[in-house]
Amino acid sequence: MGGDNAPAEIVAGALEAASDDIKPILAGPKGLDTGGLELVEADQVIAMDEKPADAVREKPDSSLVATCRAVADGRADVALSAGNTGAMLAASLVHVRRLPGVRRPAIAVVLPSDHGPSVLLDAGANADARPEHLLQFGQMGAIFAQELLDIQQPTVGLLSIGEEPEKGSKLTLEAYELLTAAEDLEFRGNVESRDLLRGAADVVVTDGFTGNVSLKLLEGTIRSVLDAFRSEITSTTRGKLGGLLIRPAARGLRARLDPDTYGGAYLLGLRGLVVIAHGNSGRRAIANAIRLAARGAEHDVVGRLQERLQGRVVASARFPAS
Amino acid sequence: MGGDNAPAEIVAGALEAASDDIKPILAGPKGLDTGGLELVEADQVIAMDEKPADAVREKPDSSLVATCRAVADGRADVALSAGNTGAMLAASLVHVRRLPGVRRPAIAVVLPSDHGPSVLLDAGANADARPEHLLQFGQMGAIFAQELLDIQQPTVGLLSIGEEPEKGSKLTLEAYELLTAAEDLEFRGNVESRDLLRGAADVVVTDGFTGNVSLKLLEGTIRSVLDAFRSEITSTTRGKLGGLLIRPAARGLRARLDPDTYGGAYLLGLRGLVVIAHGNSGRRAIANAIRLAARGAEHDVVGRLQERLQGRVVASARFPAS
Repeated sequence: MGGDNAPAEIVAGALEAASDDIKPILAGPKGLDTGGLELVEADQVIAMDEKPADAVREKPDSSLVATCRAVADGRADVALSAGNTGAMLAASLVHVRRLPGVRRPAIAVVLPSDHGPSVLLDAGANADARPEHLLQFGQMGAIFAQELLDIQQPTVGLLSIGEEPEKGSKLTLEAYELLTAAEDLEFRGNVESRDLLRGAADVVVTDGFTGNVSLKLLEGTIRSVLDAFRSEITSTTRGKLGGLLIRPAARGLRARLDPDTYGGAYLLGLRGLVVIAHGNSGRRAIANAIRLAARGAEHDVVGRLQERLQGRVVASARFPAS
Repeated sequence: MGGDNAPAEIVAGALEAASDDIKPILAGPKGLDTGGLELVEADQVIAMDEKPADAVREKPDSSLVATCRAVADGRADVALSAGNTGAMLAASLVHVRRLPGVRRPAIAVVLPSDHGPSVLLDAGANADARPEHLLQFGQMGAIFAQELLDIQQPTVGLLSIGEEPEKGSKLTLEAYELLTAAEDLEFRGNVESRDLLRGAADVVVTDGFTGNVSLKLLEGTIRSVLDAFRSEITSTTRGKLGGLLIRPAARGLRARLDPDTYGGAYLLGLRGLVVIAHGNSGRRAIANAIRLAARGAEHDVVGRLQERLQGRVVASARFPAS
């Protein structure tokens, strides 16, 4: 029931993604037409603008909370929602819970770069971060890139305001030191935002405030440029004719840059898989998000994270968990 | 002598901007061909990668420092450089100095939005900011928008990760309170980065880290999208033909979104005007930056800032200057 197009587009996306390997389960009100898919009954709905923590506490029978509980109970392998992101985060922390040793979960989004996909995290799970969180985001991001993007030795970059090690904020300067000292990471130093779409690094680490601002700016700018292009073109007859001719190319570009191509962002660092889809997701985005989610389950991303973070918990036990 | 194309493009841009109202003075080595413009002799050069504070101290006869001194001495109305931004900031603080009551100077950049230009600050003068700095950025930005963008009652927005007042980092949540309480500002709350090119507010306030990341991301994304568009189009014969037809439209768009259209960013909060141009500026960008700089002098932006910040110094004296 989450997102701007629920339930119709969610159900349609689930039906589109359903296959021999993927069995979507829907959470929603009794009697919902699921087209034959399994239904977990959940009669409450959390709206997009509700306060996350309150909503999760007050609506235990919402489809969003039911989805997280289904993962906690082992009834589903992944929880996916296009609903209230903050509420999904809150419900995940309560019901799915953090992996041992994980300080903060992070939202990992796949970016379409020139050199193939890369992953940016944290894209907004926590507005404020400490240097040791950024280190752990790098470690989680590297595992994500290996398991889900098939990058054997992923490079890790720190988003900053200059490539030189001495450029940055207090937070990034301290994180730089920690990332440099992490022997198991291919840390390649600071990366600049202008290179995000040019494959600056396979994994780009930042705090959730900067990550969220960057992600929305990227999406907004891509849309603004393409829209401005269209309106410039259609303002003359000559341009309109040209526009018809370039339409296939324009479609290809839109598809490559479209956030719906990946459809969802992973919430990493929990005892189960949680995927957050855009609030305005249509059926195609939902279907892609479900496929991305399924890939995470096949590759046992949670198991890999747990396994590989275990050694590091000891190594970095001097940082208090928060 | 600053920037990637000095001195040839700097001299050419200065000659292009020279008029009855604008008298460029160049700073550079003895014997530099200035095409007849006045020359301030300065035999040292600060390179783009030198450490700002050290370079300014060790090279008092650099063209960059000479430019700032010319403003401090009243010999010039505005200092402009396409050189090392950090060094220009450092030299400005030493030679031009802050206005009384100004806690931190800020870099103000003009963004090309759908609804006309808007101003974003701080675009990178200080990597870390406190809430009271963001309040002052709002006040300086509003004066900038009035005087240089001809906006009578500029709206001020705070860059954050959601429009709701409770969304944001520790820094933005506190700044939100201060901005709300500032009676002389048309504060319209949080704005999201996805709306930066859609005229979210006339003045958008943020810390220098987020502002610098946002500005570079905006420029990088615009370039990446236009480049990707070109390469998609030219990959087929049909596309190539369409590309020829839309070329005028594409040029119009490039011009509107091109950072060189404004050419320079203002460093606000000093006792004189300082304008920073892109390192890769060509003559057109330099000429535009000079014209923007001249407008600032005509409108006595420094006098306006001093006048209007004066009352506020008292009102906000509880914040220690830093």
